[in-house]
Amino acid sequence: MTQRWFRSALILPFVCATLLLPPASFAQEQSSLDLMPQPAHLTQGEGRFLIDGSFTVELSGYKDARVEQGRQRFLATLGRETGIPFAAVSAAGKASFLITTAGPGEAVQRLGEDESYRLVITTSKVELSAANPLGVLHGLQTFLQLVRITPQGFAVPVVSIDDQPRFPWRGLMIDVGRHFMPIPVIERNLDGMEATKLNVLHWHLSDDQGFRVESKQAPLLQEKGSAGNYYTQAQIRGVIEYARARGIRVVPEFDMPCHTSSWLVGYPQLGSGPGPYELPTKWGVLDAAMDPTRETTYEFLDKFLGEMTALFPDAYFHVGGDECDGKEWDANPRIQAFMKAHSMKDDAALQSYFSGRVQKLVAGHHKIMMGWDEVLQPDTPRDVVIHSWRGPTALAAAARQGNRVLLSNGYYIDLNQPASDHYLVDPLGGDGASLSAEEKARVLGGEATMWSELVTPENIDSRIWPRTAAIAERLWSAQDVRDVDSMYRRLAVVSQKLEHYGLEHNSSTVPMLRRMSGELDPRGLEVLATAVQPPEGYEREGLHDYTTLSPLNRLVDAVPPESELARQFSLLAGLIAAGKATPEEWQKAQDWLQRWRDNDAKLQPRLAGSQLTAELIPLSHSLAQVADLGLQALDDLKNHRTVSAEAREKNLELLKAAAKPQAVLVDKLVAPVELLVRASGTP
Amino acid sequence: MTQRWFRSALILPFVCATLLLPPASFAQEQSSLDLMPQPAHLTQGEGRFLIDGSFTVELSGYKDARVEQGRQRFLATLGRETGIPFAAVSAAGKASFLITTAGPGEAVQRLGEDESYRLVITTSKVELSAANPLGVLHGLQTFLQLVRITPQGFAVPVVSIDDQPRFPWRGLMIDVGRHFMPIPVIERNLDGMEATKLNVLHWHLSDDQGFRVESKQAPLLQEKGSAGNYYTQAQIRGVIEYARARGIRVVPEFDMPCHTSSWLVGYPQLGSGPGPYELPTKWGVLDAAMDPTRETTYEFLDKFLGEMTALFPDAYFHVGGDECDGKEWDANPRIQAFMKAHSMKDDAALQSYFSGRVQKLVAGHHKIMMGWDEVLQPDTPRDVVIHSWRGPTALAAAARQGNRVLLSNGYYIDLNQPASDHYLVDPLGGDGASLSAEEKARVLGGEATMWSELVTPENIDSRIWPRTAAIAERLWSAQDVRDVDSMYRRLAVVSQKLEHYGLEHNSSTVPMLRRMSGELDPRGLEVLATAVQPPEGYEREGLHDYTTLSPLNRLVDAVPPESELARQFSLLAGLIAAGKATPEEWQKAQDWLQRWRDNDAKLQPRLAGSQLTAELIPLSHSLAQVADLGLQALDDLKNHRTVSAEAREKNLELLKAAAKPQAVLVDKLVAPVELLVRASGTP
Repeated sequence: MTQRWFRSALILPFVCATLLLPPASFAQEQSSLDLMPQPAHLTQGEGRFLIDGSFTVELSGYKDARVEQGRQRFLATLGRETGIPFAAVSAAGKASFLITTAGPGEAVQRLGEDESYRLVITTSKVELSAANPLGVLHGLQTFLQLVRITPQGFAVPVVSIDDQPRFPWRGLMIDVGRHFMPIPVIERNLDGMEATKLNVLHWHLSDDQGFRVESKQAPLLQEKGSAGNYYTQAQIRGVIEYARARGIRVVPEFDMPCHTSSWLVGYPQLGSGPGPYELPTKWGVLDAAMDPTRETTYEFLDKFLGEMTALFPDAYFHVGGDECDGKEWDANPRIQAFMKAHSMKDDAALQSYFSGRVQKLVAGHHKIMMGWDEVLQPDTPRDVVIHSWRGPTALAAAARQGNRVLLSNGYYIDLNQPASDHYLVDPLGGDGASLSAEEKARVLGGEATMWSELVTPENIDSRIWPRTAAIAERLWSAQDVRDVDSMYRRLAVVSQKLEHYGLEHNSSTVPMLRRMSGELDPRGLEVLATAVQPPEGYEREGLHDYTTLSPLNRLVDAVPPESELARQFSLLAGLIAAGKATPEEWQKAQDWLQRWRDNDAKLQPRLAGSQLTAELIPLSHSLAQVADLGLQALDDLKNHRTVSAEAREKNLELLKAAAKPQAVLVDKLVAPVELLVRASGTP
Repeated sequence: MTQRWFRSALILPFVCATLLLPPASFAQEQSSLDLMPQPAHLTQGEGRFLIDGSFTVELSGYKDARVEQGRQRFLATLGRETGIPFAAVSAAGKASFLITTAGPGEAVQRLGEDESYRLVITTSKVELSAANPLGVLHGLQTFLQLVRITPQGFAVPVVSIDDQPRFPWRGLMIDVGRHFMPIPVIERNLDGMEATKLNVLHWHLSDDQGFRVESKQAPLLQEKGSAGNYYTQAQIRGVIEYARARGIRVVPEFDMPCHTSSWLVGYPQLGSGPGPYELPTKWGVLDAAMDPTRETTYEFLDKFLGEMTALFPDAYFHVGGDECDGKEWDANPRIQAFMKAHSMKDDAALQSYFSGRVQKLVAGHHKIMMGWDEVLQPDTPRDVVIHSWRGPTALAAAARQGNRVLLSNGYYIDLNQPASDHYLVDPLGGDGASLSAEEKARVLGGEATMWSELVTPENIDSRIWPRTAAIAERLWSAQDVRDVDSMYRRLAVVSQKLEHYGLEHNSSTVPMLRRMSGELDPRGLEVLATAVQPPEGYEREGLHDYTTLSPLNRLVDAVPPESELARQFSLLAGLIAAGKATPEEWQKAQDWLQRWRDNDAKLQPRLAGSQLTAELIPLSHSLAQVADLGLQALDDLKNHRTVSAEAREKNLELLKAAAKPQAVLVDKLVAPVELLVRASGTP
């Protein structure tokens, strides 16, 4: 067993290729095969298998169109990544890569369908075998992740992998109601899902701000509710086919009875308010709600559900059910009278009644209903799947009650949390850990949720990737795979791979900086960008008044949710403060701080030239100040100079001021510099 | 009239955003509106028109689907460029941008159709008017090119433009026979053509190495001749529609009687050789040729031309006709006998006979034939359009003979020449200048030709753009628009715009460097890349044995054909050698040379780790040596130190050695450093 060739591949931690920071990064020992998700079982051997122009792939066993298409896509992807033109066909029995598919997959991909595969690579050949096409597709992705450039050319290591997922439901939810996402955005994200072995696209297709599917039954839904931005049924079928080819189910969500303003513009008779309704431009929990008391509502929904359950072949159908504020119900005397007549004590009871009715409609169309936490009531049928946005306690309660559940709390990738936060959230962690084995079996997995108030087709990839790969690993790999350092190292590799596969999470940044600055080479902005992040959680919405019409073209929209360089600097600062840093690490920290400090002088004269950068004038200045404090602290520490309590307090005050978001951005140097300042104050 | 806001927009010369070179570039005075092509008439006023979320566009005059689609694409492009979501519809009479179309365009876009437009921008409104949709489309592109970020937001300057082209035929030829280019590549290049007001896509659809169109008449053409890489007829129709929507004609080329190996694989009976034929893997002028002596050849071609002339609606139809080596004809006794019987004295006479027969077939299908220089014979009908690859003399001769002509000699963008070379070639320069007015009127324009031996879908954009924009200006703007400095300054701006519009000429480089190095942040390679270029002309093919199977994944494939930084360094060196440089220019030259010199030490240890970079070991070393010589020369010059003749000769010898291509790349520092070394030797 050798690790030698991985070192020669020189994979560096992921740093935007355009950063003007000192060249070397953390020296990293490549201590694994850098796969994400990590496989269930892996044994590495000696040597490697070389990939050159003679590389061919042959299929044996069960003949399947999905496997044949998978083979072609695999060769195309490998060709794009390596720049080698591979032959599409090969002489029988001569191929270097043999794929054996034992049998067919389900006509409609089924929850819990076998996804296992076995991949055996020797120096002379590759064998991939699986029970059905799903395993083959996963195995091909594992192979692609193993490809590296070596002194002998492109190669994969000698390795034996037996792999299967821990959870059967590994999803990504994309909200296209709030910001519409054109088909290419959906498709490239399906490619990213395939690469990380996610198997459910949860398509959040309607919300207050938009209804995004063509309905032939009720065409005013899209005509009045989408501002022209909706998918035709042919496009929907195309996406479902595209997903199926990649081993991914498509579960649609039509959120009801609330988050439904967009429905009510065309069909005000479904609403609980007086109407007329307009497409809202503001975000948040709005009042619009369907009227659960009229039979005509259910007649409408039954027809609509009939149409949509026919369009979407998956066995599961998500009806939302979250966040009703009940204001329209409270204000409507007829609804109040209905509630009294039926002894409903509150809005929750009314919603429960609605959910029960809708569940019967969904079941009538032979689908299994899913909904957010709110749909769970004591009498909810046991087959309804609960989607937990509220958290582990709600999740565990549902599982105890006998319902199957999915976790999304902790996987809200719209909230700009670090990958490590999401990574350490386990569907069977927290209250889930105390479930019985039978109850645990009801926990199907989880979904990363990409709510879209503050993303556009341009930057959505950077909010989803690479962090969602960490969630994908959580849902695929063993529960005890939780080493954060290893995760970040491998995330850098998979992030690079995902760009090869067509995602734009890294490549979208520089064009956005160019737009802001009007400069072809926006280097100063790039340096600034490495030190700042959008605020975590919902803080951003409090810092600026966002509507559906807000241009999302500022620095906060261009920078990734997690700065890899700032993360690495924090690690360095921690080592230095703890007295554990090497001289190289000291030097690196100093070099980076100097670069951040000196950037302001170069950048400052340019910022006023553009409306989009003028707001960065104080931020850039403040960043330079913080970096300067960091440099002072390093110097004090190096020279064992004791800083007076007074001077230290003054510096900490400065840092406290700099910690406040500016231009809706958080300076990520403040916390590590504070560490250094506090350490330098210690005699 | 004010230039103030242009300075504030801080447009820098185009430098790959990822270069690690010193931050500032040449200080450039923005002395024009930076449009490319430059309009026929332009008057600038005071102030600017601001573009914000309230910006709307209204149509008046003749109702036309192409204009409406053009409006929608315009808003989408402007939205992508600015990040502002614009409303798709506006209240009548309230729009800030009013477009007036006087009348319809031709059902099939016609050569010479009116393309003029008038664009008037005031501080409060924009008016665009044109005789037909073509002018509107051009005017919208002019507006987009004017958009800049300013302290008040995105804006265009107050300006009045009256514009029309100098030549009616402004083309880009893309060869998809040698390397197939998928539809998205064609489409994004059509977007680039629209942006630069080119109006003909000349689609070179067949060559020895591939036949790229589905024929229903003769399906073995694509089945045996394309290795699976061909366009369906539906895709062809889609591209024609896509082009028409952008004011672009599509002229197909089926090259015959030579360059036809791919036809003969499926239909050997068309060939002059004994057969069987295989798809060739080598490049160059091959022997395969159709048999001009059999009537069955013309029967086949008549049916084929019937099918293809119906598929392609344009009035012109290109039948190639270039580069017959005649070897198959010479070796075939039956053909020799035919030639003797018909008193044909050489192969040219035989080809002339073939061309004449094909011309009648093309005319029989109501199309006007075009062909390369070789098709012109004394009896060639006057309506045949001659496409000159041989040069101005051939072009002028054709025009004198009474045929209409196009120039491509001088516009071979596959040959890695600088933009300035192409820019200064005029269809009415050279022998063309001596033509009479009537003869000059026969010169229709020209075409940039993208032959595809050494390009792939990944890097073709970088061979076409931005240099083709300079050719587009040559063909659109007045003959006396030929200031090279101005051209390069404006080319930098249009290059950035083209990336906004979806071209990948700049963005493709870094992923290719990542692939080569396995590094996420291939900075050392980027620095190296700025100093080297592919060899000009056909030298590259002599340096390496290329076939259709060669991976094009080396540094020579990743770097642009013209290094903007090396060009700027050459200008600096010229100023310094002439004693005309400012202290800042001295400093800049020194900084750049240091960066190039010091790069080797950092890069060298990594190069051996990848098969794709190992060949760069000597090149990187030699580059450092050359940069070091440059630094020495600068130092000598600065200190007025006279260098001995002997030392100077030694240095010039070193430079001579470094001038030889290494890893199929030319070190572009050698020439400017030689200038410095020679200057430093002068007492």
